Amino acid sequence: MNRLFSPETYIKRREQLLHTQLKGFALFLSNDEASMNYPSNTYKYRQDSSFLYFFGLSIPNIAAIIDFDRKECILFGDDFEIDDIIWMGDQPKMTELAALIGITKVMPYSAMATYIEQNRDRTIHYLPPYRGEKIIKLAQLLDCHVKEVVGKASQALIKEVVALREIKSAEEIVEIEDACAIGYDMFTTAMKKTRVGGTEAELAGIVEGIALSGGNGVSFPVILSQHGETLHNHNHHLTLEEGRLLLMDMGAENGMNYCSDNTRTIPVSGKFTPKQAAIYQIVYDANMVGIAACKPGIYFRDVHEIAVTIITKGLQELGLMKGDVAESVKAGAHALFMPHGLGHQMGLDVHDMEDFGEDNVGYDETISRSPIFGWGSLRMAKELRPGHVVTVEPGIYFVPHLIEIWKRENKFSQFLNYDKIDEYVGFGGIRVEDDVLITETGHRVLGKPIPKSIAEVEAIVGSEPLT
Amino acid sequence: MNRLFSPETYIKRREQLLHTQLKGFALFLSNDEASMNYPSNTYKYRQDSSFLYFFGLSIPNIAAIIDFDRKECILFGDDFEIDDIIWMGDQPKMTELAALIGITKVMPYSAMATYIEQNRDRTIHYLPPYRGEKIIKLAQLLDCHVKEVVGKASQALIKEVVALREIKSAEEIVEIEDACAIGYDMFTTAMKKTRVGGTEAELAGIVEGIALSGGNGVSFPVILSQHGETLHNHNHHLTLEEGRLLLMDMGAENGMNYCSDNTRTIPVSGKFTPKQAAIYQIVYDANMVGIAACKPGIYFRDVHEIAVTIITKGLQELGLMKGDVAESVKAGAHALFMPHGLGHQMGLDVHDMEDFGEDNVGYDETISRSPIFGWGSLRMAKELRPGHVVTVEPGIYFVPHLIEIWKRENKFSQFLNYDKIDEYVGFGGIRVEDDVLITETGHRVLGKPIPKSIAEVEAIVGSEPLT
Repeated sequence: MNRLFSPETYIKRREQLLHTQLKGFALFLSNDEASMNYPSNTYKYRQDSSFLYFFGLSIPNIAAIIDFDRKECILFGDDFEIDDIIWMGDQPKMTELAALIGITKVMPYSAMATYIEQNRDRTIHYLPPYRGEKIIKLAQLLDCHVKEVVGKASQALIKEVVALREIKSAEEIVEIEDACAIGYDMFTTAMKKTRVGGTEAELAGIVEGIALSGGNGVSFPVILSQHGETLHNHNHHLTLEEGRLLLMDMGAENGMNYCSDNTRTIPVSGKFTPKQAAIYQIVYDANMVGIAACKPGIYFRDVHEIAVTIITKGLQELGLMKGDVAESVKAGAHALFMPHGLGHQMGLDVHDMEDFGEDNVGYDETISRSPIFGWGSLRMAKELRPGHVVTVEPGIYFVPHLIEIWKRENKFSQFLNYDKIDEYVGFGGIRVEDDVLITETGHRVLGKPIPKSIAEVEAIVGSEPLT
Repeated sequence: MNRLFSPETYIKRREQLLHTQLKGFALFLSNDEASMNYPSNTYKYRQDSSFLYFFGLSIPNIAAIIDFDRKECILFGDDFEIDDIIWMGDQPKMTELAALIGITKVMPYSAMATYIEQNRDRTIHYLPPYRGEKIIKLAQLLDCHVKEVVGKASQALIKEVVALREIKSAEEIVEIEDACAIGYDMFTTAMKKTRVGGTEAELAGIVEGIALSGGNGVSFPVILSQHGETLHNHNHHLTLEEGRLLLMDMGAENGMNYCSDNTRTIPVSGKFTPKQAAIYQIVYDANMVGIAACKPGIYFRDVHEIAVTIITKGLQELGLMKGDVAESVKAGAHALFMPHGLGHQMGLDVHDMEDFGEDNVGYDETISRSPIFGWGSLRMAKELRPGHVVTVEPGIYFVPHLIEIWKRENKFSQFLNYDKIDEYVGFGGIRVEDDVLITETGHRVLGKPIPKSIAEVEAIVGSEPLT
């Protein structure tokens, strides 16, 4: 069995949901095993995060109902048969598992369909499914077409679950920092083992191994590439070359599936060139100033603005940008270099609750998504509150195709010096990312500090033999 | 892009399928990305193995048709848009990808539905899907209920694909041995780093990292446990203890998704106890004699019989079994200790083509599955032919619940000495597994030999510091 909080934690979380204005009942299905290349060859099991939040158990083939009308919680699942136990060893009974999470009412898995059948007149809430198997199962349970399942997910339930899950308790922060500790090992090991002539794949494998040794593996596919400017990039097929930058964006899940997510960009050779150092320093400053701005009451959109203002000013000093800084930022000229948002919430998912839709998590009735390129990429924009955990991850990238298109259109020519920018094509990209808890009075960066300043990075890169 | 064979290889494979007696056309859908805990957070991509066999490309969102009536092959897929290329970097066009695998006819992905719609009067063959997303897609394309999709898979196509895929070419053997080389590193590293006080999780992470550094990761979830007697066991949560055995069953996928699969069982302390050594030697002998028996023309069922006869004799010598050896083997008394089959085919899947159903791969019209416990677990039973790759993996386990049940029933009391067997409860389990190619004249064990004899194992265990 996976590690769990006390039963009281899960009871409290469910009580909070029971005391909302929701009517009817909410249905939570566990994630089942996911087949890789044939039915029994499965990927590493990952429970659904909302299921973990309310019911803790990281096992497939179970389900639960929180009944708002009857104020009760039911766990559905079947005990293993003796034939299974021969192959799997002793297994806890469903009643034992239920006791661990403070549930007293346990029914066989098949009783769930009956329950739904007998309560079809009441509202059935469920969260948006993101796996084919669950969509098929929900279609069957709800007697609808598979195409309708996602659309029928409960917006009301989403809203209440976001309100609970986005405010992390002290015990959750302990778990996130546990994940950060694994992440720290991943980063420092990769940094130490980076050297000209090594390979990206080798480093990527080593860090995945550390994540698996220390917890439940990586919290998202490792980004470890000399093509830092390619933002959606999970290739690790290149040999490490003198003079290039290596961007590593990676995180771990700890034993309770809480996540970490950091990014560092390092010089393969161990020493930044002056050109690299100048860009790095801007990103570093944007990261530090962005973090410093995090506190309750500020909109994360405004933290983003603070960070991209630093980037705009920095790039102006280097001659890549020009013009009025505030106007440039407002227009989104900086998005040529940083087309993404400053960060996202993090918790049981590395992009916390992204399965509910970004707008349901990072926006609320007071702020909606900007239509402007770059600004529109913010996953998190709303007001920060104590208990929020967000990433702060500014970057500067030289994306050849984007530069080419904007240059052809002469876009934002009042803010951009394309001749100077052309000198940076092939530079790559730099991102620096940390995980930040919003406290009552300000913020706290989570985890042991991973080398970040130019001096710290240069001191650690290549400092240890590969094997 | 993934590494590929020459276009001629794929052309030849498809030509062979085109020249069978099949009518109508066969539809092959790529595997798509598989979501872990929200839509965009995906597991490591794994293409379907039959898709790889005929079309090589390890990318999602494509499909192909082999039209038996028209003797043509079509690849369906869409080029990336410039918006994608900004985020993903330069991507090959569909026509370029098609050229790599010798296909000249390329159509947009949406044309596949039209093609099927316009050819609904002809037979549509497809292989059994094992992922929810593909079941949903097939139901839509074939205009049927999701429940019907698996049942409608083509038994005729399965038969022809098995006939092709099960005979490995020389270039495929090179790839399997490449996977074995990664496996060799996994095993020897884990053996060297095993020590009392270490953890299973640590070693499991290290070997997963090696598999990812060297190829596409593990070919199946790592089994690395001091509870070797628990056959379905992917837990690695224990600390390594003096006096215990550690069973490691693991394999790698190489860069072309060919697999390796080996098992070794080692003493945590580096030295087998006399009791452990005696059981180990029986399993080792069964492995060696089983391998020696592999050659064209022999039924793998009979190789299994040879191996379990060694086990029966060995356990008789130790006093755990008794009675007439041949009768004991025939009855399946040994299955108390080795309830599983001797092995399975291996190739692009570690249990090759298990998605088609074991009986379609390991049995044929000349041999059917035995109803007897133990014997009935053979995944592979049919006659060996040159080009087959099989695992040979005998084992002896002391499964407490199985012993308890059989003892209570006094099952096979003419062959089993339960009093003596009771002395071994808590012993754990031992398995030794290698990968064997059937050649024209006999067999060849694939990969560099992993330490296997008692002396070899004792020499390597714990011989290197953990970090």
